[in-house]
Amino acid sequence: MSSNSIGKIFNFTTWGESHGKAIGCVIDGVPSNIRLQENDIQPFLDKRKPGQSKYTTQRKEDDKVEILSGVFEGLTTGHPISLIIYNSDQRSKDYSDIKDKFRPGHADYTYWKKYGIRDYRGGGRSSARETAMRVAAGAVARKIINQKISNEAKITGALVQIGNSKINYNNWNDKNISENEFFCPDEKIVSEWKNLIDNARKDGSSLGAIIEVRASGIPVGLGEPIYDKLDSDIAKALMTINAVKGVEIGNGFDCVYENGKTNVDEMIMKDGKPIFLSNNNGGVLGGISSGQKIIARFVVKPTSSIISERRTIDTDLKETSISTKGRHDPCVGIRAVPVGEAMLATTIADHCLRFF
Amino acid sequence: MSSNSIGKIFNFTTWGESHGKAIGCVIDGVPSNIRLQENDIQPFLDKRKPGQSKYTTQRKEDDKVEILSGVFEGLTTGHPISLIIYNSDQRSKDYSDIKDKFRPGHADYTYWKKYGIRDYRGGGRSSARETAMRVAAGAVARKIINQKISNEAKITGALVQIGNSKINYNNWNDKNISENEFFCPDEKIVSEWKNLIDNARKDGSSLGAIIEVRASGIPVGLGEPIYDKLDSDIAKALMTINAVKGVEIGNGFDCVYENGKTNVDEMIMKDGKPIFLSNNNGGVLGGISSGQKIIARFVVKPTSSIISERRTIDTDLKETSISTKGRHDPCVGIRAVPVGEAMLATTIADHCLRFF
Amino acid sequence: MSSNSIGKIFNFTTWGESHGKAIGCVIDGVPSNIRLQENDIQPFLDKRKPGQSKYTTQRKEDDKVEILSGVFEGLTTGHPISLIIYNSDQRSKDYSDIKDKFRPGHADYTYWKKYGIRDYRGGGRSSARETAMRVAAGAVARKIINQKISNEAKITGALVQIGNSKINYNNWNDKNISENEFFCPDEKIVSEWKNLIDNARKDGSSLGAIIEVRASGIPVGLGEPIYDKLDSDIAKALMTINAVKGVEIGNGFDCVYENGKTNVDEMIMKDGKPIFLSNNNGGVLGGISSGQKIIARFVVKPTSSIISERRTIDTDLKETSISTKGRHDPCVGIRAVPVGEAMLATTIADHCLRFF
Amino acid sequence: MSSNSIGKIFNFTTWGESHGKAIGCVIDGVPSNIRLQENDIQPFLDKRKPGQSKYTTQRKEDDKVEILSGVFEGLTTGHPISLIIYNSDQRSKDYSDIKDKFRPGHADYTYWKKYGIRDYRGGGRSSARETAMRVAAGAVARKIINQKISNEAKITGALVQIGNSKINYNNWNDKNISENEFFCPDEKIVSEWKNLIDNARKDGSSLGAIIEVRASGIPVGLGEPIYDKLDSDIAKALMTINAVKGVEIGNGFDCVYENGKTNVDEMIMKDGKPIFLSNNNGGVLGGISSGQKIIARFVVKPTSSIISERRTIDTDLKETSISTKGRHDPCVGIRAVPVGEAMLATTIADHCLRFF
Repeated sequence: MSSNSIGKIFNFTTWGESHGKAIGCVIDGVPSNIRLQENDIQPFLDKRKPGQSKYTTQRKEDDKVEILSGVFEGLTTGHPISLIIYNSDQRSKDYSDIKDKFRPGHADYTYWKKYGIRDYRGGGRSSARETAMRVAAGAVARKIINQKISNEAKITGALVQIGNSKINYNNWNDKNISENEFFCPDEKIVSEWKNLIDNARKDGSSLGAIIEVRASGIPVGLGEPIYDKLDSDIAKALMTINAVKGVEIGNGFDCVYENGKTNVDEMIMKDGKPIFLSNNNGGVLGGISSGQKIIARFVVKPTSSIISERRTIDTDLKETSISTKGRHDPCVGIRAVPVGEAMLATTIADHCLRFF
Repeated sequence: MSSNSIGKIFNFTTWGESHGKAIGCVIDGVPSNIRLQENDIQPFLDKRKPGQSKYTTQRKEDDKVEILSGVFEGLTTGHPISLIIYNSDQRSKDYSDIKDKFRPGHADYTYWKKYGIRDYRGGGRSSARETAMRVAAGAVARKIINQKISNEAKITGALVQIGNSKINYNNWNDKNISENEFFCPDEKIVSEWKNLIDNARKDGSSLGAIIEVRASGIPVGLGEPIYDKLDSDIAKALMTINAVKGVEIGNGFDCVYENGKTNVDEMIMKDGKPIFLSNNNGGVLGGISSGQKIIARFVVKPTSSIISERRTIDTDLKETSISTKGRHDPCVGIRAVPVGEAMLATTIADHCLRFF
Repeated sequence: MSSNSIGKIFNFTTWGESHGKAIGCVIDGVPSNIRLQENDIQPFLDKRKPGQSKYTTQRKEDDKVEILSGVFEGLTTGHPISLIIYNSDQRSKDYSDIKDKFRPGHADYTYWKKYGIRDYRGGGRSSARETAMRVAAGAVARKIINQKISNEAKITGALVQIGNSKINYNNWNDKNISENEFFCPDEKIVSEWKNLIDNARKDGSSLGAIIEVRASGIPVGLGEPIYDKLDSDIAKALMTINAVKGVEIGNGFDCVYENGKTNVDEMIMKDGKPIFLSNNNGGVLGGISSGQKIIARFVVKPTSSIISERRTIDTDLKETSISTKGRHDPCVGIRAVPVGEAMLATTIADHCLRFF
Repeated sequence: MSSNSIGKIFNFTTWGESHGKAIGCVIDGVPSNIRLQENDIQPFLDKRKPGQSKYTTQRKEDDKVEILSGVFEGLTTGHPISLIIYNSDQRSKDYSDIKDKFRPGHADYTYWKKYGIRDYRGGGRSSARETAMRVAAGAVARKIINQKISNEAKITGALVQIGNSKINYNNWNDKNISENEFFCPDEKIVSEWKNLIDNARKDGSSLGAIIEVRASGIPVGLGEPIYDKLDSDIAKALMTINAVKGVEIGNGFDCVYENGKTNVDEMIMKDGKPIFLSNNNGGVLGGISSGQKIIARFVVKPTSSIISERRTIDTDLKETSISTKGRHDPCVGIRAVPVGEAMLATTIADHCLRFF
């Protein structure tokens, strides 16, 4: 019943604090005889790792992953894969500022009330640093998906909105995603986003963002009614990411502006195969994949750690204020892109292993 | 690992098909010595049951619930509570129309591909009829919440938008909710909604809706990091409801229009107690309840069963079309209100039992 | 986390009290398109049901099982199978004797302390009546095993010892098992057992028994290291049966009288296939089936409900004594045979579904 | 559903191979604010570690445990505790002998068939080396038990039989256990056991053993009917230990030689408290702890790795023979004592956390 684990068959457990010795995860349920080495995982970690552009935190972490078990002579053995990343930058900061204060918008107050103790260094367990291990697990999940389904199956994530600035979907080009600091598929909006972030930073503030994740090449049949629906598991998985406040599938909340006639995805035959004339349902019908592209979006709230002073209380229940100095992401949504991809990948891998 | 079960400590399993002999659920994890009888459950079922107004389906079901186990001399024993509702209206319909056709927007195609067999009568297991048992489980969950927390703790749901017509939150009045056919808290908008539904029906179409559910009186500390967060469990629970395509917590997707300064919920002391100056986070911080009102919203797509003809294919993979006659809800979102309340209640009860 | 459920993929949940309205179970994880009807289940229930010979309890129960869901036109649909048996004989007894007294050797005292309430009628939930539903689930499990592996796969149980009287394994004949009141494979010992039981009854006492269960035709590879080993899951499953105090696999406790040279099961090739020269390990190596016959034994303690007076206390913590009159099995081990078979079958079905 | 995890609330997951880089475990469910450091765990590992006497394997492992997470300033935080032991002696051996041969009595054949790959170095994942992490988890479990129940609660294990030589229970003295190489509570039998082991070794053979584990100071009420009974969970936990072939509770298999009159544990009042006149049920009634001492026994088969040549086959399905040279325990039952204690402790801790 571990609440630090997710997945029923492809199951991973993460551990570690932001400024502890290390972070890690144990992945169980990986089939045997899949070729796997650190190099299959590292590129995804590199996408998420801090300090890569001026639009993300300047914390320096190599995030070098090491496989400690479950792989023998380059192949998975069917036994748990233990991954570890040693924290290299964990001693560089003085936390006396936040030791006794609850940063508003963070888990500080709730953890302290729930546990009566908290590792305040960088948020301890509640830090988004934990998501590095999700990305690592996601890389392993991709290997499973590609082996069980096909190499055509693909998981992609992109930032589609920062603040009130939304991409033009007509400009979507997958190639753009890796060519800017924002994982943005619409190159025409990139400079606008740079300005937005710069302005937010100058203002001592931060911005929210919306991320879209897609899985293509997924066959019909993944997902289990009634309570382990593919989309409800995706919703849960994405909602566990730090700072996420909403999740939607297909046209999501916008379906309220459709009606029964416009919203159903009609079916016809094409080249001897059933196809759909639209994808308002985001590739999931009755909780089960329909063979269409799976599409989900989630919103990440503006970073709560900002330099502008905000009112709060301390552990003595005295009123005070806090200004979070240091190396914070002006828009945590950016680095949430590889994390969202990873959570979609692990959820699909889990259902893959139930299906095949 | 039953995919027909949900909850870790307060756990319930549902069974039964829309037009089978009966539907039922087994609730495990209920503490002993809670006073419970059918009358504690029936009123909630009555709110959800079909045939109550001209704005919902005309199917006639008494939905009389019977407790078969787990209660002795009016008190729970700590053992599984088995509930059953016999289907009374299950033989009245001829299903030859849909027997071999996949209703677009439904689970027909995906179930058929996944299982190679489907109980086509009224959707079988994929029918929203299953949600009656969620409402029953929700009634039991409320008893637990009230016993473990206090009688002040309260779960309320309301419809806040139909099609493009949204309530005015300033007009919200809890009392209104039970006084109209829509569970609408804003009495001023009710007549507009009547027109909307009438028009949709005349047009052979249907409408989507947004439901808001709230839990008040919940203490700080419910929820478990990292993967069993209170809000990720709520998201999953709501997303399992038929036709739901999106879920959000607090200000949800709208947080993208805020910034770090406006979005954090600042804290002050009042009458010796910590309070928050806003509730953008919807009562959850770091996945743990903060003591504020818990607020979630979910969107229900327009009913897929409509009388207007739509293109589809059949089990022989031939193109055809379908027009769903009969007694369907023009807006399934209406009857989703008590279901949403129930799923919020069962999720909170589950975390209650982990906490206390 | 329901403690009234067992199995990860083939998962069933039982509910109901000895003298409540009904008992039932919900089986999840059953693949679709398996032919199933009440008649596939009833014969196994008939083997277990009370009142069949003078060597078991005289309680009269038809134990007629009814399938309420999950089967459509004679085939499983992949959805939960709900089974129910209405209690017919539940009102015939006066329980004033045991209402306030704790029957020694029973769960009365521990349930009362744990729950603060107990359904004392016939033991309520702790009654062996619950095992009827295990037998029903076992019948469904057999269908899965036969479909997934082959019709040759077979689960058999037999009584091998009553009191100090043990069968001669050389006389073992599967055919005998169904031809006497004891499920005894050695016809030569049957009359001795009759005398033993008669004497125990005359003496106001009862006897213990050892049951052996076997599964043949099981391929190599079922079972999961490290904590879901096939044999540890079998041990757990058998140990959950009422009154069981020990479980062993293969030569079990007798292996302590072997040594490394005599105990290892050597392997050779025969007709191009690996075979073992012995089966001390009972068909399981490292927690995984080896392709040999799976063999387990469990011991059932002498029935605690006896007519001879025994010292005990009551709910007021006063000393008293109790003599359990009525219709009790002089050796509950006899009716435990079909239950043991069922638990072996459900455990193997569960691992089957993980394997295939 | 990880099969490398055990426990529902106190849950731990182990990882690592005998000759990989490291072994480790992640413990979840540990309450916050328990004082914990490496020194609380190390003494238990030292009891199990190899190379301590001439009666156990001569493999040299320091088995130094390191806490990587979940502890802050000496106190548990409520978050996962990650423990690691680096393998120091893992490169010293040449495995060419067993690389292609299946050691009879081991998991070699079944793992190879199940996974199509195996880490043959020292048995890889199937090695008893994995049990070091159980001992570590057991040490943490003891801290929980002592905090939740009382410091009086105590878990003890002892060897009660080697080969056909059984202790005299009248000579049982807890103090003896730590004063000989066998964890033997009867000092009078120690020299006989030394001879037995010496002879077995000279004979190129090995011996089986029976271990008894006890928990005292456990209150009434731990354990959950029907399928998570305390004794069925203990049975499972002990059965997962390498080479265990049987488990019993209380008088176990010997109950078959009792009758209803002699076997029930009668109750009386003493000093205002209910007490039992015997403990044939081993401290568990109806699956729930009765307040008496919890007593379980398990049998460990004779070590399968022996120097005497035995017939087997290889990965090419050719007949061959094998003689396992090297540093093996002549009686693995000895080092199973701390492992058995640990599994009893973790099972009780798990039920403790459900109860309190």
